[in-house]
Amino acid sequence: MIDKNTVITIVGLGLLGGSYAQAFARAGYGVRGIDIDEDAVSFAKEQGWITEGSTDVSLAADTDILICALYPHVFISWVKENQHLLKPGTLITDVTGVKRSVVSQLSSIIRPDIEYIACHPMAGREYKGIRYADASLFEKANFIIVSTEHNTKEAIQTAEQIAQILKFKKISCLTPEQHDEMIAFLSQLTHIVAVSLMNVKDNTHLADFTGDSFRDLTRIARINEDMWPELFMLNGDYLTSEIEALAAELLRFSDLIRTGNTEEMKRLLIQSTERRKAFEGQS
Amino acid sequence: MIDKNTVITIVGLGLLGGSYAQAFARAGYGVRGIDIDEDAVSFAKEQGWITEGSTDVSLAADTDILICALYPHVFISWVKENQHLLKPGTLITDVTGVKRSVVSQLSSIIRPDIEYIACHPMAGREYKGIRYADASLFEKANFIIVSTEHNTKEAIQTAEQIAQILKFKKISCLTPEQHDEMIAFLSQLTHIVAVSLMNVKDNTHLADFTGDSFRDLTRIARINEDMWPELFMLNGDYLTSEIEALAAELLRFSDLIRTGNTEEMKRLLIQSTERRKAFEGQS
Repeated sequence: MIDKNTVITIVGLGLLGGSYAQAFARAGYGVRGIDIDEDAVSFAKEQGWITEGSTDVSLAADTDILICALYPHVFISWVKENQHLLKPGTLITDVTGVKRSVVSQLSSIIRPDIEYIACHPMAGREYKGIRYADASLFEKANFIIVSTEHNTKEAIQTAEQIAQILKFKKISCLTPEQHDEMIAFLSQLTHIVAVSLMNVKDNTHLADFTGDSFRDLTRIARINEDMWPELFMLNGDYLTSEIEALAAELLRFSDLIRTGNTEEMKRLLIQSTERRKAFEGQS
Repeated sequence: MIDKNTVITIVGLGLLGGSYAQAFARAGYGVRGIDIDEDAVSFAKEQGWITEGSTDVSLAADTDILICALYPHVFISWVKENQHLLKPGTLITDVTGVKRSVVSQLSSIIRPDIEYIACHPMAGREYKGIRYADASLFEKANFIIVSTEHNTKEAIQTAEQIAQILKFKKISCLTPEQHDEMIAFLSQLTHIVAVSLMNVKDNTHLADFTGDSFRDLTRIARINEDMWPELFMLNGDYLTSEIEALAAELLRFSDLIRTGNTEEMKRLLIQSTERRKAFEGQS
């Protein structure tokens, strides 16, 4: 378990890595930070979010817990290239938004004396970079621990403790498959819907008339173009099936309008209202 | 123009009619209220939102301005059945969310000595009924005046004055066609997207994992099932074409994932981000 002597190193001081560092610092834990960008390291130091920082990976050498806040393919490469630096018994965790592929790739390359516990902090913003880091994001967010049969009880408990220190609202455990199916629907599909609403036609001349509805549905259309295509690709099977199901549902509604089937529309609106109420009860 | 002696009558004391009454009262204008539901009339009176109220339509007899806050077909019927009560020179306005059909139906039945100026206050809530009335809704909302060549300058000015008294954030003028095309995309399509996200599968078991994205995209999935199917039907041509265009856009994105075209995905995400920024500048 983590105590104040545990050496924790965050690799990747972007929006999420920076927010992690900020949250650890607030909770009184001194953590180290590694980033390829010197500016990000200096910024984290200036803010007092890290006790030591470097662009040099050797800072990870004697860490107990290594938190990689990197895009999926960067995370895999980093472990491949640098795990020889780590001491036996190091626990590696991550923040990636897809899990089946990452867990399977990692498990095939990781040193047997190092454990990887997959985590997904479901928090983010429509901006990137440490300057937008904000530890308060976590207070209303879910932290998902994605464990497999290879994980020890201790690693799972440590992941829970990380989520508690970071003050996540809720901690859940899912298998990689459950995680990816859930994320395809709740997060990836909704981002693609928002993006598609912006792209389907040039609607900028309508900005003057926008009410809350359109603004709510497209807030997440401001999106990190470097990260998401990779996440979409790594979850392509679940995601394409969700997108295609939604497109079919939309076309069904269009047919109801074409055929004047107001009774069925009404039934769908009642069902939608009922289901949405259940979400409010739990949110 | 409206002054404190102008007799204003609101027909239909629901969410919007009630909010109108509340806003007029706050601004120091005494208005009358008519509703088929005695409870709604008593509630408006108790709140001090109307000076006189009745379930009897004859209360409209000597009104200068008649504001019908009714569903489209109820509005048309009401005018058909009761316009003989009105005095010459009465100005009728409304709050309906579609305009081509309403304007054309009204113009074919309205008495030549009465003028109708179409208005659409773009404000609403996911609840119905006067108990949810809230005049503060208007402070961040758009008021659209949908005038035709038959409207007098004075009627348009009066509509503007109503919007000012009600404290709408912004007043715009559109033709019925411009209005309906805009509303199909910005409002009706977004409601159908939200409803379809709730209906595409039973997702209630996912409520525990919902983050802001899904909640934002489905807030408006709580929807008045009596009103919207009628609005959808009366704007069916524009609306079905918007729905079908969005479905095609979604399927195009799905194909990009299937074929691994991350470059085109990236381009779409950049375009979406740029367009969404323009909306923020103006909102």
